[in-house]
Amino acid sequence: MTVRVGVVGVGMIGQDHIRRISRVLPGGMVTALSDVDAARAGEVAAQLPGAVVHPTAQDLIAAADVDAVLVASWGEAHEEHVLAAIGVGKPVFCEKPLAPTKEACLRIIDAELAVGRRLVQVGFMRRYDVGYRALKAALDDGSIGAPLLMHCAHRNPSVPPYGFSTEMSITDSAVHEIDTVRWLFGEEIVAASVLRPRRTSKAAAGMQDPLIVLLEMASGILVDDEVFVNAGYGYDIRGEIVGESGTVALADGDQMIKRSVGQHGGRVPAGWRERFCSAYDAELQDWLAAAAQGTSVGPSSWDGYAVAAVTGSCIEALHTGDRIPVSLPDRPDFYSKAESADA
Amino acid sequence: MTVRVGVVGVGMIGQDHIRRISRVLPGGMVTALSDVDAARAGEVAAQLPGAVVHPTAQDLIAAADVDAVLVASWGEAHEEHVLAAIGVGKPVFCEKPLAPTKEACLRIIDAELAVGRRLVQVGFMRRYDVGYRALKAALDDGSIGAPLLMHCAHRNPSVPPYGFSTEMSITDSAVHEIDTVRWLFGEEIVAASVLRPRRTSKAAAGMQDPLIVLLEMASGILVDDEVFVNAGYGYDIRGEIVGESGTVALADGDQMIKRSVGQHGGRVPAGWRERFCSAYDAELQDWLAAAAQGTSVGPSSWDGYAVAAVTGSCIEALHTGDRIPVSLPDRPDFYSKAESADA
Amino acid sequence: MTVRVGVVGVGMIGQDHIRRISRVLPGGMVTALSDVDAARAGEVAAQLPGAVVHPTAQDLIAAADVDAVLVASWGEAHEEHVLAAIGVGKPVFCEKPLAPTKEACLRIIDAELAVGRRLVQVGFMRRYDVGYRALKAALDDGSIGAPLLMHCAHRNPSVPPYGFSTEMSITDSAVHEIDTVRWLFGEEIVAASVLRPRRTSKAAAGMQDPLIVLLEMASGILVDDEVFVNAGYGYDIRGEIVGESGTVALADGDQMIKRSVGQHGGRVPAGWRERFCSAYDAELQDWLAAAAQGTSVGPSSWDGYAVAAVTGSCIEALHTGDRIPVSLPDRPDFYSKAESADA
Amino acid sequence: MTVRVGVVGVGMIGQDHIRRISRVLPGGMVTALSDVDAARAGEVAAQLPGAVVHPTAQDLIAAADVDAVLVASWGEAHEEHVLAAIGVGKPVFCEKPLAPTKEACLRIIDAELAVGRRLVQVGFMRRYDVGYRALKAALDDGSIGAPLLMHCAHRNPSVPPYGFSTEMSITDSAVHEIDTVRWLFGEEIVAASVLRPRRTSKAAAGMQDPLIVLLEMASGILVDDEVFVNAGYGYDIRGEIVGESGTVALADGDQMIKRSVGQHGGRVPAGWRERFCSAYDAELQDWLAAAAQGTSVGPSSWDGYAVAAVTGSCIEALHTGDRIPVSLPDRPDFYSKAESADA
Repeated sequence: MTVRVGVVGVGMIGQDHIRRISRVLPGGMVTALSDVDAARAGEVAAQLPGAVVHPTAQDLIAAADVDAVLVASWGEAHEEHVLAAIGVGKPVFCEKPLAPTKEACLRIIDAELAVGRRLVQVGFMRRYDVGYRALKAALDDGSIGAPLLMHCAHRNPSVPPYGFSTEMSITDSAVHEIDTVRWLFGEEIVAASVLRPRRTSKAAAGMQDPLIVLLEMASGILVDDEVFVNAGYGYDIRGEIVGESGTVALADGDQMIKRSVGQHGGRVPAGWRERFCSAYDAELQDWLAAAAQGTSVGPSSWDGYAVAAVTGSCIEALHTGDRIPVSLPDRPDFYSKAESADA
Repeated sequence: MTVRVGVVGVGMIGQDHIRRISRVLPGGMVTALSDVDAARAGEVAAQLPGAVVHPTAQDLIAAADVDAVLVASWGEAHEEHVLAAIGVGKPVFCEKPLAPTKEACLRIIDAELAVGRRLVQVGFMRRYDVGYRALKAALDDGSIGAPLLMHCAHRNPSVPPYGFSTEMSITDSAVHEIDTVRWLFGEEIVAASVLRPRRTSKAAAGMQDPLIVLLEMASGILVDDEVFVNAGYGYDIRGEIVGESGTVALADGDQMIKRSVGQHGGRVPAGWRERFCSAYDAELQDWLAAAAQGTSVGPSSWDGYAVAAVTGSCIEALHTGDRIPVSLPDRPDFYSKAESADA
Repeated sequence: MTVRVGVVGVGMIGQDHIRRISRVLPGGMVTALSDVDAARAGEVAAQLPGAVVHPTAQDLIAAADVDAVLVASWGEAHEEHVLAAIGVGKPVFCEKPLAPTKEACLRIIDAELAVGRRLVQVGFMRRYDVGYRALKAALDDGSIGAPLLMHCAHRNPSVPPYGFSTEMSITDSAVHEIDTVRWLFGEEIVAASVLRPRRTSKAAAGMQDPLIVLLEMASGILVDDEVFVNAGYGYDIRGEIVGESGTVALADGDQMIKRSVGQHGGRVPAGWRERFCSAYDAELQDWLAAAAQGTSVGPSSWDGYAVAAVTGSCIEALHTGDRIPVSLPDRPDFYSKAESADA
Repeated sequence: MTVRVGVVGVGMIGQDHIRRISRVLPGGMVTALSDVDAARAGEVAAQLPGAVVHPTAQDLIAAADVDAVLVASWGEAHEEHVLAAIGVGKPVFCEKPLAPTKEACLRIIDAELAVGRRLVQVGFMRRYDVGYRALKAALDDGSIGAPLLMHCAHRNPSVPPYGFSTEMSITDSAVHEIDTVRWLFGEEIVAASVLRPRRTSKAAAGMQDPLIVLLEMASGILVDDEVFVNAGYGYDIRGEIVGESGTVALADGDQMIKRSVGQHGGRVPAGWRERFCSAYDAELQDWLAAAAQGTSVGPSSWDGYAVAAVTGSCIEALHTGDRIPVSLPDRPDFYSKAESADA
């Protein structure tokens, strides 16, 4: 079957998902749009034969020709939209964050538990990256022994000079490593600290950049994550897991090596679109396949909740300079049974 | 629109294309099958809701619910099937070789010219590989100056001990480099020679493996291609273009680097499916997009013809030890105007 | 002139330096030996024509045919031997540590200041490694902008199951990064912390391995150093400096890439001898050249003192879990003028 | 003992060897110089305490305080100088070529055979490069199975616009690969061909650059050597040996990887001095050690002769376009017994 998708929020990321469903992936089509900016919704719909604009997200979610909902609205609105989709029993893909607070995430979990079926997939696309998948496969096949620590770096070429705060280095950037290490190691983060290296002069006034975020996993695995959002030279995502008998690291993934003017080497991606293009495709493909069965797979509401909890501890650690424990209830058994088949 | 594809020949490669159209790519669906082995066709159709088996390729090609034809039959039958598709004005994707002889290829060209519209795409998937595309982009943007020579290697882990002749190292293996260098440099091959290095003891009795195939381009660019089909250690495709001011080479494309037991490094692909998986997807995607417009793009009948001519010269060079010129008529203008938009 | 060297302590490292002076480097010869184990001294002398055994280090240091002294005795004895050499105005190369305590190091500094001429070189050989030199050159030529942080890893394949304590991971292993980052950045370390990742099961009972040592430089540059002395797979020294506009990292320095059995890659050094062989040669060459002029260059008594101070803070941080400041007096101007010409 | 070396010819390469003996290596000292340009000899001697200038090479070779002779004179004079050294039984290091003609080389062999002791080492320094040594070790330990073919590239950034002929791409550049492959595979070259790729516009008028030199070894191993002396981007020496079960290749030997402005990578050496600095040191160290015993090791007169024969065939192949066999007599047993201990 072709999954008829309604898209809530048609800004940059929403439009990118629309393109993906319409032109890159099989199995889905966009039949409905809504946006707080009705004019923008109209413009997008004009390029999309067969898609209609709904006046509100609630209308869209309720529409008979919408089988599944993709939420790409403003983060503050995620809870309302996801709960609405759950309320009508439709699979919903929600861009990160699942919701801005732990409490909101818990309300989503409760709603989903009440339905008794996985309906929510959160947009942590790195789980679908071939590089991270190779790391996980190496962990799982025992080729480096038990993991002991991991070094990460998350480098953006730059962030806008206004409107990107130090806190956003955690909520928008480190959030990806936070989810990824939980998934890689199959365990929760129990404490977080944030260190402040020498500040780059390229950061906006008042912003601390780079940061080192330290994450302690339940088993004692220690993760250090350099978050540097004005790194200048490119978009560079690094990760090396150190195990008892070896290490595995993300490679540069070069397709071409150039030798020119005294140098040899490859390119660094220009941005996250280039770096994670295939991962975005794969996460939506996974969602569409599950949605065709009336459910969702991959990163769950629980993952959205746990990441929100860790992010909160990181923010507190940033402000206080202290090591902040992460407090989580036990994970409902429900969420341990519903992994993506190919995750 | 969804392109309704009829597949002629449902052996290994045919089934792989069916999987691609049905599950990986948007824009197409398989509605019809035929195979000389009717039982096999039935088995494949049983897994494919909505596809019907036709008793003959001709029936399939003529069927009203077939918009475009994918030919994955035995090489000897390609001419008949492609001509039939051209005869009814339907876009046709034909696995390599276009046809086994230059003369057969010319008949296809004549038929297509008579229609006056590109209908044929030949399955030279390397033009869609991101590595080769990066090489071509580097050539085209002038970053290494005028190209002077190219080193290639085509290494398979092994070939079947029976039924793979030395000639097949050219017709089945080197054929890929033959098309690729024509496309990279935008010019024809004018002569070929074949050298015989020391023979591996792993080759079947009577088989010369490896070979060095030397290809001379019209501008004087010299290409050496090591073809080694029992290389043992993996499937390894190499290519370095040497220009006036630098070189570009295919990289290993590693996603992960492992450090273990005194070594660090990445993996070599196990086979061509792994190595060129994305390229196969991309070539069919390109074809489906064009077929929706009633035409074809990418590698053309002319490319199929020119490659057949070069392959013939290589075989003669293999047998005689001589340098054998390649004789080609002028390329019809028709074929210079019909490149794939994103090629 | 040929510098006549007396070697105090002819254990493993002492013998290695003797080999270097006698067979690898020009400009020096070993004329005198002493060791607390007289029999061992005799055995080494028997292989070394022209070298005589002295009953005590003091006798050796005073001998007329000894121009310069190489101290490779037990660490506890370094102070006595170095002070004796300074007392007679002879250049002295002292293996790390300069002395086991800050106070002992200060007494050496005072003695050297009283002479008014650089006489002491401490065996921090990494300053002579071509990789680290390349990093320093990149820092100095501004190619990555101001340095902000550095990631290091120090991995040994294994340490002896008995007699290697957690503290030795700092005093014998991290000590190298401690000196190296001071030299790379041209500034002192002001505080240290030690983190305890998940413990490898390969470590001896009671030993915490790996560690993460955090070093804060005076300018705010933050260094994280993974010290993992039972890493199993090889001897692997890593370092990446992150600057405002780029990064530089130690490379693997491969001489050969092998492609075999599904893998491609290079080797990891088996141990520190292999990894730093050329650096050991270069440090002694630098010393011999200076000794011929009656002085010493390279890592100084001040460096030995500062490293002892940082090491002490690290040990305290290991035991307490706290961030421990490093307290250093101002560096005497004397030590800022005496850098190695080619350092 | 310290070997007292007389240097015949103190141009660029002669002065470099003098520096090496005087300042880099132990075991030798330069006591005598001669040069056709007496003024230049005087200038060099003025910087070299203890060295005297002899009016002629013959005087120098005969001098009582000269234990061994280093010939760095004009190639045309090599025969005279080497024969003179052999005549007085002194070890002699001769820069390549041993002599300009096969006949001259044979006269040297005859003279050495008459003495009955290895006296001549030819300056084929690549045998002492750690990269090539690693390739040879891999061949010898069987890790890639029997060698079948080898790909080489010899790229110089540029050659002088006047005075560097196409023939010199063989006699001065390819000559290194010619010797190296003989040593790597332990067998002679039996035929040579030369191909002419598209010519770079950067070459001087009338010069064919690049070339592809094809060398056939006695066992059938085929070597292709791209010789490109105006490659522009750097000095780049490449080599990959393809065996029955894997390949080994020279690596780039990077000491540092830089990530900057959208790129990551290492540097390409600027020239042969940088690339082979350690190899030059090692070859002379080997010679000095043997000379102290009154003999020579490493590349022999036979090697010089065989290389001259192959070079001659290459030149003929260049001029005729034909495949030219190499005609060699059987190697005297004398030359099979005198390999360098650590070669």
